Amino acid sequence: MTSQDEAPQAPADEHADLWLTSAELASWMSVVRLITRLPWAIDAQLQRDAGLSMVEYMTLAMLSESPERTLRMSVLAEHTSTSLSRLSHLVKRLESRGYVRREPDPSDGRFTNAILLPAGMSKLEAVAPGHVAHVRHLVVDNLSGERLRRLGQDAERILRRIDSPAR
Amino acid sequence: MTSQDEAPQAPADEHADLWLTSAELASWMSVVRLITRLPWAIDAQLQRDAGLSMVEYMTLAMLSESPERTLRMSVLAEHTSTSLSRLSHLVKRLESRGYVRREPDPSDGRFTNAILLPAGMSKLEAVAPGHVAHVRHLVVDNLSGERLRRLGQDAERILRRIDSPAR
Repeated sequence: MTSQDEAPQAPADEHADLWLTSAELASWMSVVRLITRLPWAIDAQLQRDAGLSMVEYMTLAMLSESPERTLRMSVLAEHTSTSLSRLSHLVKRLESRGYVRREPDPSDGRFTNAILLPAGMSKLEAVAPGHVAHVRHLVVDNLSGERLRRLGQDAERILRRIDSPAR
Repeated sequence: MTSQDEAPQAPADEHADLWLTSAELASWMSVVRLITRLPWAIDAQLQRDAGLSMVEYMTLAMLSESPERTLRMSVLAEHTSTSLSRLSHLVKRLESRGYVRREPDPSDGRFTNAILLPAGMSKLEAVAPGHVAHVRHLVVDNLSGERLRRLGQDAERILRRIDSPAR
């Protein structure tokens, strides 16, 4: 009951105007399948070829691009859309594999920094080409440049609504 | 190291041509944020207002639209992109709340059917308007009809690659 197939079948109550049309429903269900299956597909390649989840890969990648390969845990959590407690577990696993270490932020000991270690950088360099090739295959080379650009813009429009405090 | 900011910074090795341009990377990172945050946002509204996850809602909705409100567990698993073992746990929880029941498929006892019960239908009818309004707010009413249609088409293009056995 995500919607009705045809407008005339919509329930005759005060909610009838809320119902999705069949075209809207079809597009929305495609989006639902995308947000369900694409994370799984990205994860599957990284797990198979590198033993990393998508969030673990993103964590290593973000650290690699940061000054001194260091980021506050709270900033990493925000950038990876992960709760701080989930990120702590994840970084602990990366630490046990020798890819990162944590230490109190020297400028403010209330914060913890994560730092990418050389073994983590090497891992990332080994993994990145396969990951990028997979992203190209599924998404980037699969859409025209113009469509990819619009897809990114649509994503940003939706993200702004998600982040809006109005709701 | 999802990519380099500028093409000249790409590593001078055989993988250089694989690297994403900065425009491609920006669009891809928007897609990554979308597939990370949109499921969370849909889940959050359903959990808060109905105590249901997105997959639980989809399960009830798919059963409600099926003949005799019945579907094989294996079909439900496929349509919700869930593993059969994860779906079994999920349906067990819905069963304990009186929303569905399971029984061996009368036409072939090797299969199990899930059947939507009246309490599950009532729950869905109570929950659907709020869910649909949220989907309208975040996505459907947030994009023009044409953009929504294209977004659905882009999603289907990506899903076809994910499902393609060529890789």
